[in-house]
Amino acid sequence: MNKFMNEALKEAKKAYKINEVPVGCIIVKDGKIISRGYNKREKTQNPLAHAEIICINKACKKLNNWRLDGCDLYVTLQPCQMCLGAIKQARISNVYYGAKTEDVPDDISTYIECRECSEILSDFFKYLRNK
Amino acid sequence: MNKFMNEALKEAKKAYKINEVPVGCIIVKDGKIISRGYNKREKTQNPLAHAEIICINKACKKLNNWRLDGCDLYVTLQPCQMCLGAIKQARISNVYYGAKTEDVPDDISTYIECRECSEILSDFFKYLRNK
Repeated sequence: MNKFMNEALKEAKKAYKINEVPVGCIIVKDGKIISRGYNKREKTQNPLAHAEIICINKACKKLNNWRLDGCDLYVTLQPCQMCLGAIKQARISNVYYGAKTEDVPDDISTYIECRECSEILSDFFKYLRNK
Repeated sequence: MNKFMNEALKEAKKAYKINEVPVGCIIVKDGKIISRGYNKREKTQNPLAHAEIICINKACKKLNNWRLDGCDLYVTLQPCQMCLGAIKQARISNVYYGAKTEDVPDDISTYIECRECSEILSDFFKYLRNK
């Protein structure tokens, strides 16, 4: 597996542990991970608390700059419209995702197939249904 | 002028005062304003600090709920892709904007023409060019 996608997957697992839809994200600059995030929508009762948004917030704070050009974002699930918009606002250079969704028109991201990124989501929804 | 759009315009004026692109937003529930926000991208060095995002964050905190159905959002400028996505994520019922942008496919918002909402923007950009 792509080593950075694997790091994003580690974040998704943290979401799973707290009963959130397991999506994880990291941002990389010059080969180094500068921020990490995972979905916390239910925990924070905030619809904006997607993995990507949390990750972008942290990266901007770290760099003290709203421009994240030169940064790459790895996320386990294809970004939603809000997150795609945020990625563009932040001028992130490259976006890679590990599992596909079907309903988002997406002109900027690159799919890196990651079986585990899909499996953790289907496992989670199976678990929810059985609960 | 629509009284709620006028309240959003008051927020836009606060942004203008601190040299931010003057966009303001309010969220209304049951006829009452439950949150206010204005663009703070430069001040916070955060690309997510659009008026709408700040306003949604505050409303969710206030209601302790990520679902804002039953809430209406008034914003002085047509929302960008990120903010439209956030508005949908938050399940806001109705969106009204006072000035148009040309490049955002928008299937959910309603235009309430507001000359002052456009003028404050053109004034601001004129001021920037003359600086």
